[in-house]
Amino acid sequence: MKQFDKRNLTMVMDFYELTMSNGYFREQDRDTRVAFDVFYRKNPDGGGYSIFAGLEQIIEYIQDLHFDDDDIAYLREQKIFEEDFLEYLRNFRFEGDLYAFPEGTIMYPNEPILTIVAPLIDAQLVETAVLLQVNHQSLVATKASRIVRAAQGRAVSDFGARRAHNMDAAVYGARAAYIGGVNGTATVLSGEMFGIPVGGTMAHSWVMYYEDEYTAFKKYAETYPDGTVLLIDTYDVLKSGVPNAIRIAKEVLEPMGKRLKGVRIDSGDLAYLSKKTRKMLDEAGLTDCQIVASNSLDEYTISSLIDQGGRIDSFGVGERLITSKSEPVFGAVYKISAVKRDGVYQPRIKVSENVEKITNPGLKKVYRIYDETGKAVADLIGKYDEEIDLTKPFRYVDPVAPWRQRTFDNCTGKELQVPIFKDGKLVYKQPSLEEIRAYVKEQMKEEMWPEEQRFENPHVHYLDMTPDYYDMKMELLYEVQK
Amino acid sequence: MKQFDKRNLTMVMDFYELTMSNGYFREQDRDTRVAFDVFYRKNPDGGGYSIFAGLEQIIEYIQDLHFDDDDIAYLREQKIFEEDFLEYLRNFRFEGDLYAFPEGTIMYPNEPILTIVAPLIDAQLVETAVLLQVNHQSLVATKASRIVRAAQGRAVSDFGARRAHNMDAAVYGARAAYIGGVNGTATVLSGEMFGIPVGGTMAHSWVMYYEDEYTAFKKYAETYPDGTVLLIDTYDVLKSGVPNAIRIAKEVLEPMGKRLKGVRIDSGDLAYLSKKTRKMLDEAGLTDCQIVASNSLDEYTISSLIDQGGRIDSFGVGERLITSKSEPVFGAVYKISAVKRDGVYQPRIKVSENVEKITNPGLKKVYRIYDETGKAVADLIGKYDEEIDLTKPFRYVDPVAPWRQRTFDNCTGKELQVPIFKDGKLVYKQPSLEEIRAYVKEQMKEEMWPEEQRFENPHVHYLDMTPDYYDMKMELLYEVQK
Repeated sequence: MKQFDKRNLTMVMDFYELTMSNGYFREQDRDTRVAFDVFYRKNPDGGGYSIFAGLEQIIEYIQDLHFDDDDIAYLREQKIFEEDFLEYLRNFRFEGDLYAFPEGTIMYPNEPILTIVAPLIDAQLVETAVLLQVNHQSLVATKASRIVRAAQGRAVSDFGARRAHNMDAAVYGARAAYIGGVNGTATVLSGEMFGIPVGGTMAHSWVMYYEDEYTAFKKYAETYPDGTVLLIDTYDVLKSGVPNAIRIAKEVLEPMGKRLKGVRIDSGDLAYLSKKTRKMLDEAGLTDCQIVASNSLDEYTISSLIDQGGRIDSFGVGERLITSKSEPVFGAVYKISAVKRDGVYQPRIKVSENVEKITNPGLKKVYRIYDETGKAVADLIGKYDEEIDLTKPFRYVDPVAPWRQRTFDNCTGKELQVPIFKDGKLVYKQPSLEEIRAYVKEQMKEEMWPEEQRFENPHVHYLDMTPDYYDMKMELLYEVQK
Repeated sequence: MKQFDKRNLTMVMDFYELTMSNGYFREQDRDTRVAFDVFYRKNPDGGGYSIFAGLEQIIEYIQDLHFDDDDIAYLREQKIFEEDFLEYLRNFRFEGDLYAFPEGTIMYPNEPILTIVAPLIDAQLVETAVLLQVNHQSLVATKASRIVRAAQGRAVSDFGARRAHNMDAAVYGARAAYIGGVNGTATVLSGEMFGIPVGGTMAHSWVMYYEDEYTAFKKYAETYPDGTVLLIDTYDVLKSGVPNAIRIAKEVLEPMGKRLKGVRIDSGDLAYLSKKTRKMLDEAGLTDCQIVASNSLDEYTISSLIDQGGRIDSFGVGERLITSKSEPVFGAVYKISAVKRDGVYQPRIKVSENVEKITNPGLKKVYRIYDETGKAVADLIGKYDEEIDLTKPFRYVDPVAPWRQRTFDNCTGKELQVPIFKDGKLVYKQPSLEEIRAYVKEQMKEEMWPEEQRFENPHVHYLDMTPDYYDMKMELLYEVQK
């Protein structure tokens, strides 16, 4: 793979990670082990699920985490850190454990998707970068998944680089979109770095550069007879674009034994224009010529175009995918869940006026529970040292209705977090991007109820607890209240 | 300055830049000079202006633009480019001219904020990166300017890194926010790279790590007696946070001869809590203790908090600034405006069904027109070789109402675009970030009508045309129609 990112990204952190770390250092607390969970509270766009993405870049960040001479000099200039702390930072390497869902795992609110168990400072210093990667890539992967679903099997490509929030957003956004299911990207570097199929044909400037549209189309067809896709909306789609495209098919391509691959419409009423265009192409015998549409598309406009009978074979999706325009923030947070004292991990809970903001305390394990047909019926949180035996009926607590007596019968379970780092060493074999993408597809098809995938009022995935875990949480809440 | 970005960003481009360039190369058209304008059509959030930002990173991109061996190898694998074109790319350096508004210039829709006059391929290859930088940084600078305005002189800091769309969005987003007027950032690398003041104190994890809130506050105050800002909402702001903060001020800081600098509230009803907190602090004699508020703030929530009498001295603004959440897309476009044929630049126009999408053709100059008081009354587009003499009444055309007879009287004008690159050489001395920020401030205070700055239904800045330019555009439209 192309060595793209030689940057030292260590300092992409909030300043308070450093003021706190310095505080812990001064208090001689730096080796106390703690646990932090990453979780989020709401699926974007009112959806029923999200896709976990960005783990590969988190691994890269942690492996490379080091403060270079410039960084130390800069921190010294702030005049609030003493030399022994700066010296400590200079030699700092991450030495903690990290557990996470495999990249591409379908995830739901309030469950720990990533857990760090590490010395206090190690856990604190990685907070910002971990959240930033999870938030950005999960956001775009989830949005892509929704858009691909709306397209009902038609191809979807990422055209968004120019509206991305700077370089990384274009490059890693394309990666996340591919994980979420798009078929390709226009961003060349994302193709080069990750092997994502790249594509692209012509802009309006190509058409406007030449004296007239026919000439512009002709030049293009002569250069790319095997993949001619003509942009037909520079002047007038139906009066000029389509007739010229048909002439090119007949006069330029057919004599070479080639077929016109497609036309692209980038403005106007895409439903109306695509239907008219389809009719004109078909009448000219170009039934195999594809129609590509682009221009401010997302899951809502694509659904609407298909509802209206739009004859579109392929969608180019730009700004609304790459910025997740309708909901550009994925709100994953990083909360301390346990502190090791005298050899024991004491659970910590964050209470809040808002009940939904109360955290799930302690070291824990998360399981996905499947019924006999292989569908995921719930996720289950248990204590980290609990045995979960699903070979017989297993009692669980639904924390939304804890009085109900519920059991899992004839179910199987899978632990969702896997070890990524142990004592700072990478112990995880990373899957390829293709494997991650295939894993997403498989879960959506085989494991996730369609009811969780619909856009309107989707089924809410259950997050249940073992009785022991639920009791521990309740006890802690009573205690904090006093 | 820290050498951060050793990445080769060249390939952050849409694939069609390369397919078109190859086409032009094959047609022997690569040296034909053309002009492209960057402009946008709508200010974000229904505002009356935007701030041009990102020029420094555009300059860096263009200066470093080169295809390395990996890039060439990757393009070869695509099997659609011939060796002579790949060889051409391998030796490619940008050789064109670039003109732009100085960074930080207030800008308005439909005027060329950046113009490239260059050989065809040179102009095409930079499109994606130019747009991406303008779109991202102008978006965040403009949002920051609105938020700072809403804060009415209170300090505003960027806390957004963890919700940014990956690394660059955090780092360059903080830069853009600083241009737009925020006072500082929490993102350490942005401080290190750009000299932006950084700040940050503690997270909830600090408070939760210790046995109780008082102990946590005490440890912090002992470590940072000169800048103690305590996060008071981990358990209960009024019952626990404020009382503990007051005890710290009395029991820990005052014996050291120090004052409590501030408290931060990060959840709950910020208006109510800040008023109550202010009262409690004042009654304890801590009238100089500042109140910092954070949690999903933007210009709307800040305006509302101030309207409600919230007693907040300083705002920490995160996701809604760094993603410009209410409008996360800045829609600048890149359109061909002229092609040089037989020594003359022929204007090109993009017509459209939507009248507002018709482009302004030809090589042109843009002036900002000031009245006697120094206020900017309009922007004016003229042909590039026209003399604009404002020492006497100057007739202009308002294209929205071209029948009106209008003149500028007693006005002065300033050409807005300045040369940045000439024949590929940088001819521009870049201002410092502080200078850019001061320039924004000065324009907002001295040049721009407050009527253009209000959030609701702002005055629409006039974009007028010289009679010659207007006639040329009309002629071209008649011609294209035929």
